[in-house]
Amino acid sequence: MSRATVRPPRSPTTRPASPWATADQKAAARHRKRDAVILTAARAFKERGFHHTSLDDVAALLNVTKPTIYHYVDNKEQILFECFRTGLDQIRSAFGEVRRSDVPARERLEVVIRRYAAAVTSEFGWCMVRAEDLDLSPSMSSQIKALKSEIDQGIRRLLREGREDGSVRDVDAKMTAFALAGALNWIAHWYRSDETLTPEQIADRFVSIFIDGLRPR
Amino acid sequence: MSRATVRPPRSPTTRPASPWATADQKAAARHRKRDAVILTAARAFKERGFHHTSLDDVAALLNVTKPTIYHYVDNKEQILFECFRTGLDQIRSAFGEVRRSDVPARERLEVVIRRYAAAVTSEFGWCMVRAEDLDLSPSMSSQIKALKSEIDQGIRRLLREGREDGSVRDVDAKMTAFALAGALNWIAHWYRSDETLTPEQIADRFVSIFIDGLRPR
Repeated sequence: MSRATVRPPRSPTTRPASPWATADQKAAARHRKRDAVILTAARAFKERGFHHTSLDDVAALLNVTKPTIYHYVDNKEQILFECFRTGLDQIRSAFGEVRRSDVPARERLEVVIRRYAAAVTSEFGWCMVRAEDLDLSPSMSSQIKALKSEIDQGIRRLLREGREDGSVRDVDAKMTAFALAGALNWIAHWYRSDETLTPEQIADRFVSIFIDGLRPR
Repeated sequence: MSRATVRPPRSPTTRPASPWATADQKAAARHRKRDAVILTAARAFKERGFHHTSLDDVAALLNVTKPTIYHYVDNKEQILFECFRTGLDQIRSAFGEVRRSDVPARERLEVVIRRYAAAVTSEFGWCMVRAEDLDLSPSMSSQIKALKSEIDQGIRRLLREGREDGSVRDVDAKMTAFALAGALNWIAHWYRSDETLTPEQIADRFVSIFIDGLRPR
């Protein structure tokens, strides 16, 4: 081989483009594929039901085989848990954001209600709301219960803070948190993507009902 | 046999007590037994889940055999439907009562909310709320959907009447009916008979939250 055909070495900052992915690229690709498995499964669970969807079904929807799926998740239960967590993280992040805000607690609660409605109308809403009803392992059930309890406690805290800063009426925090979560969770029972209202419009209506009540002011 | 031992015939109004039941008594006993089958099954479905409860389990709880159960109901699905209908009838009867009342529509809605909460916290609450999620025959599913829709429409009607008589703020009737039903149905997910609040107290809190909202007045 003639030395003349060898390209001069580039500086370390402009390394030659390798046909092999870097560790970062590999991690990102793996992440993307795992997300696709979870999203595809979430849709299938919602359409066919958890018990009527197999990992083979999920694999077929992604044009791969079941062993490929097992590369990203351990089992169907784990997918359900990830669906649950993905939806939940949208709500948890709302709590995180409003914690740094200094608007009255009622307005912070409104942000959480809107984000909650967005999560329940998302692809993960069905799994989020139904997961606990399904026959899951005791360990997964208790993980899901703990995460739900975190949200419940977060809503109660905002209600108590609202009573303190005068932005919320003197209501029973536990019952109010249950009423809010119930109304919001129930969206997963009736919401279809062809609903005439957008998720934002649904959230607007819910905020109005809960904040201002039905009695004329 | 000596004639002297035969008792004199009584008048038709005081017929001798027969050890055989009358048709009315038989019908009443049958009714009582059927109710016991449905109530026992409702409790078992709630505790163990619908799919994990067999008619043999229900029979054992009543100290009878499965063939006896089949004397009162056709199958497990029919029991679920009867549980659903029993809970639902409590709500439907509330609509019937308030129809004859001339108080403002908001107060009539409050009666319905209270009766709805009572139904969901009753023995039949779990079946009422979960029935549609279970794998039922298409015919039973559509019957349950139709009865649920009747309640939904009843709530929307009261909200519209409230807007007309000035007792309800100008809210989206459909979304409000969904928020109310969601919050009320969700009670079945968290209510336990050892809950510190009575069903009436829970209903009071829910009425307060929905009627007066969270913003101080």
